[in-house]
Amino acid sequence: MSKVITPQEQDYSKWYNDIVVEADMADHSAVRGCMVIKPHGYAIWEKMQQTLDKMFKDTGHVNAYFPLFIPKSLFEAEEKNAEGFAKECAVVTHYRLKTDPQNPGKLIVDPEAKLEEELIVRPTSEAIIWNTYKGWIQSYRDLPLLINQWANVVRWEMRTRLFLRTAEFLWQEGHTAHATKEEAVEESKKMLEVYADFVENWMAMPVIKGCKTPNERFAGADDTYTIEALMQDGKALQAGTSHFLGQNFAKAFDVKFANKEGKLDYVWATSWGVSTRLMGALIMSHSDNNGLVIPPKLAPTQVVIVPIHKTEEGLAKINEFAFSLKAKLESKNISVKYDNRDSLRPGFKFAEHELKGTPVRIAVGERDLANGTVEIARRDLLSKEIINMVDVEAHVEKLLRDIQTNLFNKAKERMTNMTHKVESYEEFKKVLDEKTGFILAHWDGTPETEEKIKNETKATIRCIPLNNPLENGICIYSGNPSTQRVLFARAY
Amino acid sequence: MSKVITPQEQDYSKWYNDIVVEADMADHSAVRGCMVIKPHGYAIWEKMQQTLDKMFKDTGHVNAYFPLFIPKSLFEAEEKNAEGFAKECAVVTHYRLKTDPQNPGKLIVDPEAKLEEELIVRPTSEAIIWNTYKGWIQSYRDLPLLINQWANVVRWEMRTRLFLRTAEFLWQEGHTAHATKEEAVEESKKMLEVYADFVENWMAMPVIKGCKTPNERFAGADDTYTIEALMQDGKALQAGTSHFLGQNFAKAFDVKFANKEGKLDYVWATSWGVSTRLMGALIMSHSDNNGLVIPPKLAPTQVVIVPIHKTEEGLAKINEFAFSLKAKLESKNISVKYDNRDSLRPGFKFAEHELKGTPVRIAVGERDLANGTVEIARRDLLSKEIINMVDVEAHVEKLLRDIQTNLFNKAKERMTNMTHKVESYEEFKKVLDEKTGFILAHWDGTPETEEKIKNETKATIRCIPLNNPLENGICIYSGNPSTQRVLFARAY
Repeated sequence: MSKVITPQEQDYSKWYNDIVVEADMADHSAVRGCMVIKPHGYAIWEKMQQTLDKMFKDTGHVNAYFPLFIPKSLFEAEEKNAEGFAKECAVVTHYRLKTDPQNPGKLIVDPEAKLEEELIVRPTSEAIIWNTYKGWIQSYRDLPLLINQWANVVRWEMRTRLFLRTAEFLWQEGHTAHATKEEAVEESKKMLEVYADFVENWMAMPVIKGCKTPNERFAGADDTYTIEALMQDGKALQAGTSHFLGQNFAKAFDVKFANKEGKLDYVWATSWGVSTRLMGALIMSHSDNNGLVIPPKLAPTQVVIVPIHKTEEGLAKINEFAFSLKAKLESKNISVKYDNRDSLRPGFKFAEHELKGTPVRIAVGERDLANGTVEIARRDLLSKEIINMVDVEAHVEKLLRDIQTNLFNKAKERMTNMTHKVESYEEFKKVLDEKTGFILAHWDGTPETEEKIKNETKATIRCIPLNNPLENGICIYSGNPSTQRVLFARAY
Repeated sequence: MSKVITPQEQDYSKWYNDIVVEADMADHSAVRGCMVIKPHGYAIWEKMQQTLDKMFKDTGHVNAYFPLFIPKSLFEAEEKNAEGFAKECAVVTHYRLKTDPQNPGKLIVDPEAKLEEELIVRPTSEAIIWNTYKGWIQSYRDLPLLINQWANVVRWEMRTRLFLRTAEFLWQEGHTAHATKEEAVEESKKMLEVYADFVENWMAMPVIKGCKTPNERFAGADDTYTIEALMQDGKALQAGTSHFLGQNFAKAFDVKFANKEGKLDYVWATSWGVSTRLMGALIMSHSDNNGLVIPPKLAPTQVVIVPIHKTEEGLAKINEFAFSLKAKLESKNISVKYDNRDSLRPGFKFAEHELKGTPVRIAVGERDLANGTVEIARRDLLSKEIINMVDVEAHVEKLLRDIQTNLFNKAKERMTNMTHKVESYEEFKKVLDEKTGFILAHWDGTPETEEKIKNETKATIRCIPLNNPLENGICIYSGNPSTQRVLFARAY
C-alpha cells in the first residue's frame, strides 16, 4: 500500500487531496483558490474534452469563443443571473500598473488608468453571449444557433478544494437559441442525455438524471436538469447541468426573431456545462488507498510495460520484445508506455504506475522471455496473472474492456446499496449520519420545507428524478401530503 | 466579385476587416478591444491548434494549465518582464459586487471586498509558471521540464484590430526548464523550427527565420528567435517567437537544482508562443477580393458539393450521387459538406463558399449526371474544369495538394519579389514608400541607429536572419562599418 496516501478510512478528505497531489493531477498555486493542473491531470482532462467535443459536434454543435470580460452593465441585465453571481466575482477596475514612486522596482496600480466601466471576469457567459446573439439573430432562418465554448471561468468561492471547487476552473458552456419553447426544452434534455452517456460510459460513473427544484436552479433558468453521481463516501456530486432558460435572456438582451409568419417573438434559450470538477468526481469514484484508478477509456496511458532484467544482455532481449509488443498494441489504438528508465528499480515503477492509475501493467523478465510468458496486472483489482505471450494482445484488449465495465458495475452497485428509502424525518437523519448516500423521501413540494431540512441536516434535494414514479405519501418533515419521493443527499 | 468586400486596392485595411467579419471569422464585442471568434473562424483555429499540439507532443512536450491571475508581487519579480507588460495589463482589485443602494437592480463594486493584493490578468505566464516550477525542481532528475499551455491572455492594447491585435487573445505558451544553457538554447531553436514548419507547410506562408535585436527582444529574454512573414501589402508580420530566457526567471524566482555532482545552480529557461494573431496572418496572406482563401490543410470543409436541379426527381438522383461521392471522399480523410439547403439558389451558395474560402467546389447538375461529369472549381485560382465522374476522387485529392502548394509558391514568389537590397538611406526610404516589403540593409549594430530609423520611417529591424551571410558594408544610416545586412520592414 502506498505510503504517501492517507487511507480513506482515516480521513477521506485528506485521502482525496493526497491522491490529487501525489498522482500529479493538480496542485495549489500562489493565487488564492486557483489550482495548477499538472501534466498527468491535464492529459486526462484532454481525453474528456476530446470525447465531449466529438459528442457535441455529433449532435450538431459548433465551437466559438466569447470574451473573458463582461461589462458590468451587461452583467446586471438579467437580474436573477446577476444576483446569483454578484457575490463571488472577480472585478477588473484598472488597466495599467506604474512604478511605485516610494519603492523603486515595485509596481502599483495606476489610479489614472481606472476603467470607466468595471469588467467582470466571466463566472458564466450567458450575458456576453446573449448580447452578441442579438446581432446574429433576425429571423427564424438564423435559428437554431447551437454553439459551445471551451473556456476558463472565475467564481470567487470562499472555501476551495482542488478540482471540486476552485476560484478559476476550466469548462465548456453550450449556449443555444431556438425558435420554439419545445425545441429549447428538447435541446436541454438532449444535452443532459449526452452528459449522462459520457459520464456513465467513459467515466464509468452511474448517475441519476433529474430536475432541480426551483431553489436549486441555475440563476436565470426556468428549469435545470442535472445528473447526480454518488461518491465513495456517500456524498452526492452534481456532475453536469443543462438549463432551459426560457426567454429570460432574450428579454434581458432584447433578442427577437421574425418567425415564418413574420411575427416578432423573443428567442428561447438553453445553456449547459460540465467542468474540471468532473476530474474530482472521477478520482472520488474509483480510486483506492494505493492511488488513482482511471477508467481505461480516459487513461492517457492504458498499458505500461516494465522490464525486469539482471544483465544488459537480458535487457536487450526484453527491449526487443517490448518494443514489438508496444507497436502491436498501438496498432489496435491502445496507448502504451514502455517504462525503460534505467535509474529506477521495477518496484519503484510498479508503485508509481499504481499511484498514477495506469489500468494495465505488463512486467517482462528474463525468465518470462525464456518461458514465453508475461505477468499482467490490472489496476482496478490489483490482481496479477501469468499470460502466454501469444495471447497478450487479445488479453489486454479484453482486460481494458473488463476494467471499464468492472469500474462502472462496482460504482453502480455502490450507488444501489447506498440509496435508501426512508419514511420519517428521524429515519432520514439517522440514515444521513450512519449510512450516508442517496435518500428517497417524500417532500411536500414547498421551498420552506426544503430550506429547513437543508439548514437542519445539510442535506439538499439533489433532484426530482426523471420519470419519477408517482406515489402518494406524507412529507417526512411537514407531514403534508406528497405525490412523489425526491432524491436527497449531502453533496460536494 | 463579392459586393460585400471592399477591394484590396481601394482600402487594404477595410478589405481585411470586411473579410474577417463577412466570412464569419470574428466580430467585435461589447468589450473594448476584445473579439468574438465566430464558429467558422474558430473551426480554422481548432485545426491550427490540433496540428500544433501534435507537433509539440511529437517533440516531447506535455500540456498543463496554470492560473489566469498573477499576484502583483510575483508579477513584479522579474523586473524587465514586469516593466514590459505593466503598461497594458488588466488588474483585478475586488472580488464582489453588491446592489447599488441608490439604484435598485443595479450593481456596484463592493468596497469591502477589496483584495489585499491586486491580481494581474496574465499577459504571459512566465511569472506564475516559474513560481510554480520552484516547487517542482530540486535536482537534475527533474529536468528538463517540457510544458505547454493553451490559454487566453490579456494585454490592454490601445489600438486593436480583429485577430491582429486584441486585448484578449488565445495562444499557446511553452515554458521549458533545463539543466544547461546549451540545452535551453537548442530547445528555443528547435521550437522556432517547429513554428516555421507549421507556418510554411500548413499555413502555406513562407517565413524568414532570425534573431531579434536586443531592442526588439521579449521583455526578460536573453535572445528572441522569430519567424517573419510578409503580407500582401508588403508589411511584415511576426508569426511566432521563441525565447532563450537564460537564468533570468530562475534567479527572479530562486529556482535552483542540484546537478549530477550535487552542486546547486540556477535553471535555464525557454518560452515560445503563437497566437490567434496567426489567423490574421492567414487571411492577409492568401485571401482576395472575393473573400477568404484557406490552405486545404487548415480548411474545416475542404470540399463542398452543390446540387443544381430543376425537378424533385432530378434532385433525388443528384442526392444519390452526392452522398456516395461524399462518403468516398471522406474515406480518404477529406472533409466534405453537401450543401443541399433547399431555400437557397446555387449562385448564392457559390458566392457564400467563395467568401468563406472552401478550397474545392463540386457542382452537380442533372445534365452533368446524364453526361457522367461534374464541374469542379478551385478557390485559389477561381478556375473551373469539367471532370469525368470516374476521375473525381483522384482529381480532388490532387487538387487539394496542388492548391496547398500553389498558395505557398505564390506567397514565396511574392516574398522574393518584395525583398530588396538597398545601399543607402535614401534608397531605403524610397523602397519603403514605393515598393514596400522586406529590406536587407547594412546596420551598424547600435540600438541608437535602430531607434532613429524606426522613429523616422516606422520601419523596424524584423530580425537578423539565421545563417546570415557575413558581408562587409556601411550602415545606411550612420555610415559606420557593418558586417552583415539585417531585415527591415514596416510591420503589423
